[in-house]
Amino acid sequence: MTKSDGSATIALIASDVGVSVTTVSKVLNGRADVAARTRALVEDSLQRHGYRRRSRRPPAVTGHLDLVFHEFDTAWCMEVIRGVEEVTSPARVELVISQLGGRHRPPRHWADDVLHRSPLGVLLVLCHPTESQRRLLTRQRIPFVVLDTDSATAASTPTVGSNNFNGGLLATRHLIDLGHRRIAVVSGPADVLCSRARVAGFRSAHDEAGLPVLPSLVRYGAFTGHAGYEHGMQLLATPDRPTAVFAGSDIQAMGVIRAARQLGLRVPADVSIVGYDNVPVSAWAAAPLTTVDQHVADMAGTAARMVLDLARGIDVPMTRIDLVTELVVRETTAPPPSAAPTASLSPFV
Amino acid sequence: MTKSDGSATIALIASDVGVSVTTVSKVLNGRADVAARTRALVEDSLQRHGYRRRSRRPPAVTGHLDLVFHEFDTAWCMEVIRGVEEVTSPARVELVISQLGGRHRPPRHWADDVLHRSPLGVLLVLCHPTESQRRLLTRQRIPFVVLDTDSATAASTPTVGSNNFNGGLLATRHLIDLGHRRIAVVSGPADVLCSRARVAGFRSAHDEAGLPVLPSLVRYGAFTGHAGYEHGMQLLATPDRPTAVFAGSDIQAMGVIRAARQLGLRVPADVSIVGYDNVPVSAWAAAPLTTVDQHVADMAGTAARMVLDLARGIDVPMTRIDLVTELVVRETTAPPPSAAPTASLSPFV
Repeated sequence: MTKSDGSATIALIASDVGVSVTTVSKVLNGRADVAARTRALVEDSLQRHGYRRRSRRPPAVTGHLDLVFHEFDTAWCMEVIRGVEEVTSPARVELVISQLGGRHRPPRHWADDVLHRSPLGVLLVLCHPTESQRRLLTRQRIPFVVLDTDSATAASTPTVGSNNFNGGLLATRHLIDLGHRRIAVVSGPADVLCSRARVAGFRSAHDEAGLPVLPSLVRYGAFTGHAGYEHGMQLLATPDRPTAVFAGSDIQAMGVIRAARQLGLRVPADVSIVGYDNVPVSAWAAAPLTTVDQHVADMAGTAARMVLDLARGIDVPMTRIDLVTELVVRETTAPPPSAAPTASLSPFV
Repeated sequence: MTKSDGSATIALIASDVGVSVTTVSKVLNGRADVAARTRALVEDSLQRHGYRRRSRRPPAVTGHLDLVFHEFDTAWCMEVIRGVEEVTSPARVELVISQLGGRHRPPRHWADDVLHRSPLGVLLVLCHPTESQRRLLTRQRIPFVVLDTDSATAASTPTVGSNNFNGGLLATRHLIDLGHRRIAVVSGPADVLCSRARVAGFRSAHDEAGLPVLPSLVRYGAFTGHAGYEHGMQLLATPDRPTAVFAGSDIQAMGVIRAARQLGLRVPADVSIVGYDNVPVSAWAAAPLTTVDQHVADMAGTAARMVLDLARGIDVPMTRIDLVTELVVRETTAPPPSAAPTASLSPFV
């Protein structure tokens, strides 16, 4: 009455205690309808015989997905995880997450670790395998998809992103339609293509409207509250300050709002602000942000679905899917002040 | 010249192409110092022979940690993940994450899935295994630790939390020290012990100062911006409104600020607000929040370390570790307005 691995069976426990197999099962399953004393005897026998339970359910989990971030940024990453998990959980695929400590290229040993883990597939967020890592994964038939808001990744890598040009265009058109003529942009870092694509959309909206883009109002900076604050202070402290600022992320926009507040400017009465991302907290900023929704969770879910399809040998029709960005108008945008912009005396947002 | 599994060796490829083993290795490792034509020939041979590379590094990954959330909340969960990963990554332990769709008790089949995955250990965040799940995990020698801000979990489950009573006390003392005498608390849900523990701290601070607690100023609600907003509107619209509000989370505090702003009250000139959690975005709220830091990432890291110690058979000295909460004073708190509180005409925060 031992299993092939030498461990005790339920039948052995039942016979040892002098109860039915059903009773032992009930104890194992934590059912309440077993007398306390019987339960104690069964538990004791299970302990003495070193009973190790086998899983009742078949191993329905079919493998895992490797989710690799370039770094763990707060709200944005959580949206990615949420979107991926909505796909992997119903598919009973496990989710293994890791990050590259801010690097956009995995280190040398990374691919070896992946091979060792043998995932169904790999989803890389804002990072790209090197050429040799790509070859290695391809040779081992481990599919990989990149989630990147940067719109010009190599066509050889399946990529999910969003339309940054479109996002920049929509945000700027919104401000122009409200009547703004002096509009600043604080985009992401200059060396990230998505930042430049948004500025290109910003320029196109100006071109459409026959408006010049003022070079001093085009800024690049990190996707942080601090960068938004610094650029906001520089932009808004000048006498010919812009009446609107289009920021590169929601947290950057919050930094610009901070600067405005510190300079005694009201949002949106004195200056309109548009964010980017639509992370959940943006709705609860003191001034609920007008922002561009880049549907991060949808992007992540789409990318996860692609990985799983590839893992199942299903053809993925396109190697690049760009989700449409969408403007969410809330309370940080309004028509520009009718008078020429001058610093208001009211020291609050 | 095939491996025991019948696949080709590097030596076979080298002999097939007529190059050295070193050259084949260089191609496999993606090195640049191989002539393009040679690389192509080697790649072709690798392909034809279906060469499957073995990991060069020993399988240093020693297992995985199961990180189970009751749900994926934005900023707070990301702090937990960040804290856990800082521990698991250097230990070369993989991180498998999942969530229970808002449930605080895992469903019946959950423990079976865990057994199937065979993690080094399980870290549960704001959720608790049932008695039978606990027995199952214990019997299979899978250690588990609960991360819960609720301070009264069963002593039989190793738990990491933070001192909520202390947090409530510190926040309220801060407001009393500033001169506030009409202080409201909007805590978390009433059925969550941590909410009540914070209110207990709030009461103690009043007792110390010989101040009465006004029952109408003690509120419970969800940890959401919306709940903060709703309670804020009710509390701040009254003529005898409080001059300060202590909220249950940073996002709830942002909801209270929203309400204040809508009612034409300035923060902190007309009303002081204290948050709870110190999630990164709290520093970039239009008014940087004064808040209680409960060191979420540290809690998570401590809990992860406990799981790994348990997995290695190292004794964990205590079954409950409460980290000390800390008040972070920023810009939403100030002395109360000297005049009796009346709604200001300035319609901004």
